[in-house]
Amino acid sequence: MNQVIGAEAEPRTLRGRVRILLERTWFSRLVLSVILANALVLGAETMVTGTALSVLHTIDHAMLVFFVVELLLRLFANGRRFFTDPWSVFDLLVVGVAFLPASGSLSALRALRVLRVLRVITVVPSLRRVVDGLLRAVPGMGAVGALLILVMYVSAVIATGLFGETSEEYFGSLWISLFTLFQAMTGEAWPDIARAVMVAHPSAWVFFVLYILVVSFAVLNLFIAVIVSGMEEITDEERKDDEQKDERLDALAEQNREILAELRALRALRATVGEDRADS
Amino acid sequence: MNQVIGAEAEPRTLRGRVRILLERTWFSRLVLSVILANALVLGAETMVTGTALSVLHTIDHAMLVFFVVELLLRLFANGRRFFTDPWSVFDLLVVGVAFLPASGSLSALRALRVLRVLRVITVVPSLRRVVDGLLRAVPGMGAVGALLILVMYVSAVIATGLFGETSEEYFGSLWISLFTLFQAMTGEAWPDIARAVMVAHPSAWVFFVLYILVVSFAVLNLFIAVIVSGMEEITDEERKDDEQKDERLDALAEQNREILAELRALRALRATVGEDRADS
Amino acid sequence: MNQVIGAEAEPRTLRGRVRILLERTWFSRLVLSVILANALVLGAETMVTGTALSVLHTIDHAMLVFFVVELLLRLFANGRRFFTDPWSVFDLLVVGVAFLPASGSLSALRALRVLRVLRVITVVPSLRRVVDGLLRAVPGMGAVGALLILVMYVSAVIATGLFGETSEEYFGSLWISLFTLFQAMTGEAWPDIARAVMVAHPSAWVFFVLYILVVSFAVLNLFIAVIVSGMEEITDEERKDDEQKDERLDALAEQNREILAELRALRALRATVGEDRADS
Amino acid sequence: MNQVIGAEAEPRTLRGRVRILLERTWFSRLVLSVILANALVLGAETMVTGTALSVLHTIDHAMLVFFVVELLLRLFANGRRFFTDPWSVFDLLVVGVAFLPASGSLSALRALRVLRVLRVITVVPSLRRVVDGLLRAVPGMGAVGALLILVMYVSAVIATGLFGETSEEYFGSLWISLFTLFQAMTGEAWPDIARAVMVAHPSAWVFFVLYILVVSFAVLNLFIAVIVSGMEEITDEERKDDEQKDERLDALAEQNREILAELRALRALRATVGEDRADS
Repeated sequence: MNQVIGAEAEPRTLRGRVRILLERTWFSRLVLSVILANALVLGAETMVTGTALSVLHTIDHAMLVFFVVELLLRLFANGRRFFTDPWSVFDLLVVGVAFLPASGSLSALRALRVLRVLRVITVVPSLRRVVDGLLRAVPGMGAVGALLILVMYVSAVIATGLFGETSEEYFGSLWISLFTLFQAMTGEAWPDIARAVMVAHPSAWVFFVLYILVVSFAVLNLFIAVIVSGMEEITDEERKDDEQKDERLDALAEQNREILAELRALRALRATVGEDRADS
Repeated sequence: MNQVIGAEAEPRTLRGRVRILLERTWFSRLVLSVILANALVLGAETMVTGTALSVLHTIDHAMLVFFVVELLLRLFANGRRFFTDPWSVFDLLVVGVAFLPASGSLSALRALRVLRVLRVITVVPSLRRVVDGLLRAVPGMGAVGALLILVMYVSAVIATGLFGETSEEYFGSLWISLFTLFQAMTGEAWPDIARAVMVAHPSAWVFFVLYILVVSFAVLNLFIAVIVSGMEEITDEERKDDEQKDERLDALAEQNREILAELRALRALRATVGEDRADS
Repeated sequence: MNQVIGAEAEPRTLRGRVRILLERTWFSRLVLSVILANALVLGAETMVTGTALSVLHTIDHAMLVFFVVELLLRLFANGRRFFTDPWSVFDLLVVGVAFLPASGSLSALRALRVLRVLRVITVVPSLRRVVDGLLRAVPGMGAVGALLILVMYVSAVIATGLFGETSEEYFGSLWISLFTLFQAMTGEAWPDIARAVMVAHPSAWVFFVLYILVVSFAVLNLFIAVIVSGMEEITDEERKDDEQKDERLDALAEQNREILAELRALRALRATVGEDRADS
Repeated sequence: MNQVIGAEAEPRTLRGRVRILLERTWFSRLVLSVILANALVLGAETMVTGTALSVLHTIDHAMLVFFVVELLLRLFANGRRFFTDPWSVFDLLVVGVAFLPASGSLSALRALRVLRVLRVITVVPSLRRVVDGLLRAVPGMGAVGALLILVMYVSAVIATGLFGETSEEYFGSLWISLFTLFQAMTGEAWPDIARAVMVAHPSAWVFFVLYILVVSFAVLNLFIAVIVSGMEEITDEERKDDEQKDERLDALAEQNREILAELRALRALRATVGEDRADS
């Protein structure tokens, strides 16, 4: 029963009918509308209090029920395969956030319910393609990213050792140093940090200038890796054109070989005739 | 009468004469001069007071009258088609700003009169081409832009929920959060904001680091989308060259086919001759 | 005498000898050494006082004399043509700075003497090529640059009108506004400026967000214009390769035409023989 | 004995056995593990005090001994060639940092021990490739980099001369000016610096605007140099494809030449036969 190929094959079974429903255009439009309405409701919740808030909470709960039902239908329709589709798992996770305990110290999790709105990406094909494209670019950035993390870690250990005691605000511990150096990498406020540190360590500029140069250069190359991978898609198309050209050239060579064979046959024939004539 | 194709066709009618006038080089130069002079006048108005200001106001009014007359002439000359040309509508809007009520709470609209100077773009063809080019790049950025807005909205709702009470300055309401996150996206001052928030929420760095990484990566891809679309124009030219090459290869193959046909005819002739000879 | 083509043609005349001297490798190396030494001397002057400063001044004067003599020799050797070479004029200007009156309110001009060190660019061919390359990219940026200036001017007039009275520090006059908006364009500190203005004008965010979006987008395109022009140089090389390929394809087609002519001649011969045979 | 080509050639000698050991997968995995563990230990050292610190110091010393032994083995196995491999020298230097005197005023060198962790790059081939790639891009940036340094130096001398006395914090000496201008080049905080200077020198904006424009433009071109060099690698592949195409075209031309020769031989034969026949 899991091996069924398409919904069309079994329209009479319940599972078949659910599949047909999920594939209907009006249904995915409905889902998109509810997600967008939910985005507005969750946004509005931050702006109101009292009764209005209660009303919005109720609407939000109704929408959550809708999402849960939709996910259950998809789970029922696709069976085990539901869990092999990363986008389905993503939907499950962002909807599931609503069921995490959000009391006491975990109350922050309530604010994460809005992640559910990211389901827009799952529902709108063009957004899905963009995110797929972004994720495809990640492996190409792997080695440069690893290098960047390595440089940041080593720099953070050095900075904590050198400036930790005098500049507690920026380099008080390894974690604070890592955060400070991440900020410096994004190019923000590093002059303030550098000048603050240089009060106690006048030669700290060496560290900062080297760090900025190395990290900017690595980030630049991360950047280029992504551009180049984007261009490779274009040149791949060109390569296909080139292969077609190769095939044409091969066809030409094949034609020429036929011509040569024809000519040789002709000469052989000619020679025979000549010989025949000589014989006669 | 609306179907007239060119101004040349009806030089005698009034409409025809107006069209000829509008197409004259000296006329568009005059318009450009008045626009630039108007730019200077509006700039100078910010610097003077008293009588000088009154004089500038009078000059500005005269120039406005000139623009209105010019627009009326163009409206008269082009009829309905005036409204189908987006640049004409643009001219109408930026000149029309001067006629909006600018008293009381709307006095800010007075400052917008200078938008009229943007008409330089309409008048100078090379600027028009650049703006057309910029606008053409917009659809290619559509999906990434939508994704960016989605991420900003979701992040703003989360940030308002998490930090709204402790950091009213940056995340006091959904709108303030959106503005703060827009600033963080342009890479400005996010360390200050992050450090201010981390006083009350020590783990807020997770939110900021994730936000910066996701948004930078998306912006980077927006960027690349524009570069790649710029490059596609170049490669399109190459593709045309390639197609010419294909045609040449096809011509070669055609030639070869002719050669083969010729050879086969020759062999057939040869064979006949051989047979003839054999017969004789 | 001005029409002489090369120095080799007239080694005996004084002008010819000067030309030979100026073209010697050791002479341009000497000039480069003096420029670099002058850079160090002018740098050192900022660090010392008293007698050391007097000594450095004397050395600097001697070097200036050397540069003047060198320029006079080049002027003598090249005559009128000296003024048609932009690099010679550049040399003349940066050396000439030293002869501007630098007393009283113009004392700032003294600091500009170090511009003379930029002559390194004139002397080192690879630096000259880079600067030539940079300057070649400028025309391609022309229209976008003009657009950017237009947007900045219009925005500065609007901002002065709207915020001039409440934020004198940033928008007090048209010039201050232009400077502030230039800073915002480089992406620096605009959040501080925006938040300062928004105290008095809560809806000022509309102005800033629009300005940042428009200007970033235009700068991005400036950027891309330069990248694309850089790439066109590469694709131009490819185009040359392509043209060579076209020539080869043409040669192939020519060969095929020859083959066809040969075959037709052969058939004609064949037919004649056949006829002859038929006649006999 | 130095000319031995591979470890396989002399498995029986001690040197041969050491080589085989160094090439084993498990051995390089062990080295990588020890490096990563060492990274954690050195990071943990910044977080603990007392006994825990002593324990970590002891572990760190043991790991250092491991690295020294590994380096000695590699030195023994490769002899003189060890010093011709830049990565080996890099390993030697970063491990050697631990043996520098780190007492008194040089205590800062202790913090540099963590540089040892950068050996991850030497051990992981993909990181090594990335760094090799980054270093290969450096020469292409040479001339633009030199230009940038020249512009910074000249600007620093000018700024020190002009603003040195009034803005000691930013331009008090040539070194401080260079650091400030480096910060301005990375685009950070230049508005603060410019506004601070403009209190005493209202026309200082000319200097800052020119500096930012020139430097941004040069950095942009540095950037493009790297992108273009990245793209050249792609186009080089295409060029190879092109060369293969050239070879195919040459083969086609060669075939055509053969066909022509064949045809001419045929005609010659034909003509002889005709003549023969005429003779008979």
